[in-house]
Amino acid sequence: MTQTFLLLPGDGIGPEVTEQARRVLDVVAPDLKFSEALFGGASYDEHGLPLTDEVLNQARQSDAILMGAVGGPKWAGVARHLRPEMGLLKLRKELDVYANLRPAFCFPALADASSLKREFVEGLDIMIVRELTSGVYFGEPRGIDDLGNGERKGYDNACYTSSEVRRVARVAFEIAKGRKGKGGLYPGVTSTDKSNVMESGVLWREEVIKLHQEEFANEPLDHILADAMAMQLVKKPKDVNVILADNLFGDILSDEASQLTGSIGMLPSAALGEPGTPGLYEPVHGSAPDIAGKGLANPCAAILSAEMALRWSLDRADAADRIWNAVGKALEDGARTADLGGSMSTSQMGDAIIAAL
Amino acid sequence: MTQTFLLLPGDGIGPEVTEQARRVLDVVAPDLKFSEALFGGASYDEHGLPLTDEVLNQARQSDAILMGAVGGPKWAGVARHLRPEMGLLKLRKELDVYANLRPAFCFPALADASSLKREFVEGLDIMIVRELTSGVYFGEPRGIDDLGNGERKGYDNACYTSSEVRRVARVAFEIAKGRKGKGGLYPGVTSTDKSNVMESGVLWREEVIKLHQEEFANEPLDHILADAMAMQLVKKPKDVNVILADNLFGDILSDEASQLTGSIGMLPSAALGEPGTPGLYEPVHGSAPDIAGKGLANPCAAILSAEMALRWSLDRADAADRIWNAVGKALEDGARTADLGGSMSTSQMGDAIIAAL
Ligand SMILES: CC(C)[C@H](C(=O)O)[C@@H](O)C(=O)O
Ligand SMILES: CC(C)[C@H](C(=O)O)[C@@H](O)C(=O)O
Repeated sequence: MTQTFLLLPGDGIGPEVTEQARRVLDVVAPDLKFSEALFGGASYDEHGLPLTDEVLNQARQSDAILMGAVGGPKWAGVARHLRPEMGLLKLRKELDVYANLRPAFCFPALADASSLKREFVEGLDIMIVRELTSGVYFGEPRGIDDLGNGERKGYDNACYTSSEVRRVARVAFEIAKGRKGKGGLYPGVTSTDKSNVMESGVLWREEVIKLHQEEFANEPLDHILADAMAMQLVKKPKDVNVILADNLFGDILSDEASQLTGSIGMLPSAALGEPGTPGLYEPVHGSAPDIAGKGLANPCAAILSAEMALRWSLDRADAADRIWNAVGKALEDGARTADLGGSMSTSQMGDAIIAAL
Repeated sequence: MTQTFLLLPGDGIGPEVTEQARRVLDVVAPDLKFSEALFGGASYDEHGLPLTDEVLNQARQSDAILMGAVGGPKWAGVARHLRPEMGLLKLRKELDVYANLRPAFCFPALADASSLKREFVEGLDIMIVRELTSGVYFGEPRGIDDLGNGERKGYDNACYTSSEVRRVARVAFEIAKGRKGKGGLYPGVTSTDKSNVMESGVLWREEVIKLHQEEFANEPLDHILADAMAMQLVKKPKDVNVILADNLFGDILSDEASQLTGSIGMLPSAALGEPGTPGLYEPVHGSAPDIAGKGLANPCAAILSAEMALRWSLDRADAADRIWNAVGKALEDGARTADLGGSMSTSQMGDAIIAAL
């Protein structure tokens, strides 16, 4: 059956990098059926909404979705609920892609790009599994109340249910099972919370422990406070294998981890729901409006997001491996965009990777 | 008038490091009147409570309080509301020490101790101002509800009022005014929030902006999302001057920052309330039960916490400067505990610093 792939190029450098991912996909998976739609600021400018119902339906009917990037200062003045980022939150929620996979890895050729010393990042390979459709991002009640006399109160509900914790924890355990054994202080899944100060953190930890006992008792499991994980990632990142975290901690920790390698332009991400539902793929980097349209952006994160789509949604591990290896080879041969200290344009970097396929 | 100084040595390595701080204070401020009390696990073991009313009253009547460290696996089985850490939260709340000052700095002699390359940390000097008595740590309602069928819901209220934000923001602006100008991307106060997804974050940002316009319009002010700050701290930490953050983001970001220098055994902290109320000082490191009682702990963080007490609560900047310079000199002369790659014992390190006073 034909697999359908929806491209949401979005804003800023989104269209440029998505184009290179599409070129690579055309080579390794020529039978994919592509469609493309407006999303984020680009959709707001056209339709007054960051995500229209039509595009949402298109997304629901796709097998995989690749998003370029959303947002930018251009839309800072837009009413908050209409901002490009709100389109992203809505898309995640509506597709129910609750497991956000954010790898942090270091291609050997780039081990010197980091602010960290080479020995701390060479061979780094962390997978962060972040809960993506609940927690303080979506909890109710939330709001800002007027208390009189110029005093106001802003509040958000940081909450999780058992089943929300269990389903994302299951993804983390399954992923850990599929990864080659790692030594170090945190060899398997390391679940992250603030159970010392939050009730939702207590629930989180208890449910992870329960699921582990019921279904994954032979897999290594550690628990660590979110602040301690923020330390560990700087101190000895290579000791970490799979991190499981809620929406908010996962947001912060995955961004921290993304900088360890010094090349955020390399990092892809996946957001997965139940088997058989479409996955949402996007580079970790933002829309970088300052370099948009100049052909300076590094397309690797978008290309590797396509690689993740082939692996996680389209059941085409071979095609994914081809991309992964080609990116590694192109880097070894010296292919570099400006962010990696080189002078290749976005499309030249795409050329180099296609040549290495 | 005699100034009174309460020591709460606490648990693990707490007593050892506090002792060295006391020795240093005896030299630079011999007229201080000391008292000492049980706190944390040590208090729980004796009284069944991590913080007794008596000790709380003693704290209230002191000019400054130095805490060593609290907690450890020994008390992991204790009912949650009686854990050592709960004594700490209660002490912070009761003293209303809402402004937590967490510096991250790098003594020149230690610029190679970090996982980061020397050029990224040499001269690093960040001050994090963390709100310490509100936010999701204390918000109500909070709890775990049974939803039936084995399903539960855990929830916490992440909330702030205008005046809570304003008073801690004011501390950050005042501190930034007193620091020598820094260039870089974030030269003044950088306020951190998740105002893109949290209502309390929207309130936070709006109140900081308002206070800035009213009272500090000439000071540089930036706003950045908490995830972006987690990246910035790894990418280019020296670009950052003063970070203002809420209780939860401040907890995570200050721990991340504490590892940038590679020597968490060096870092002190202060928790300040309104002028005229006692400040609470503590090392950033924990109770390190694995090395407790062995004379291996680095006393510098405790000694520098005493230094902060002299500066921020006792109005003795000269004595504080003496300590700061002595620590720097001792390090230059090669004084090192095990965590810094040396072989000095806790008391030998104390000796070296006292000799350099
Ligand atoms: C844009 C923003 C709402 C989003 C988030 O906080 O989830 C982003 O930071 C991310 O991590 O994808
Ligand atoms: C012990 C714990 C409750 C505490 C906190 O989260 O505030 C600690 O991590 C800290 O930062 O002092």
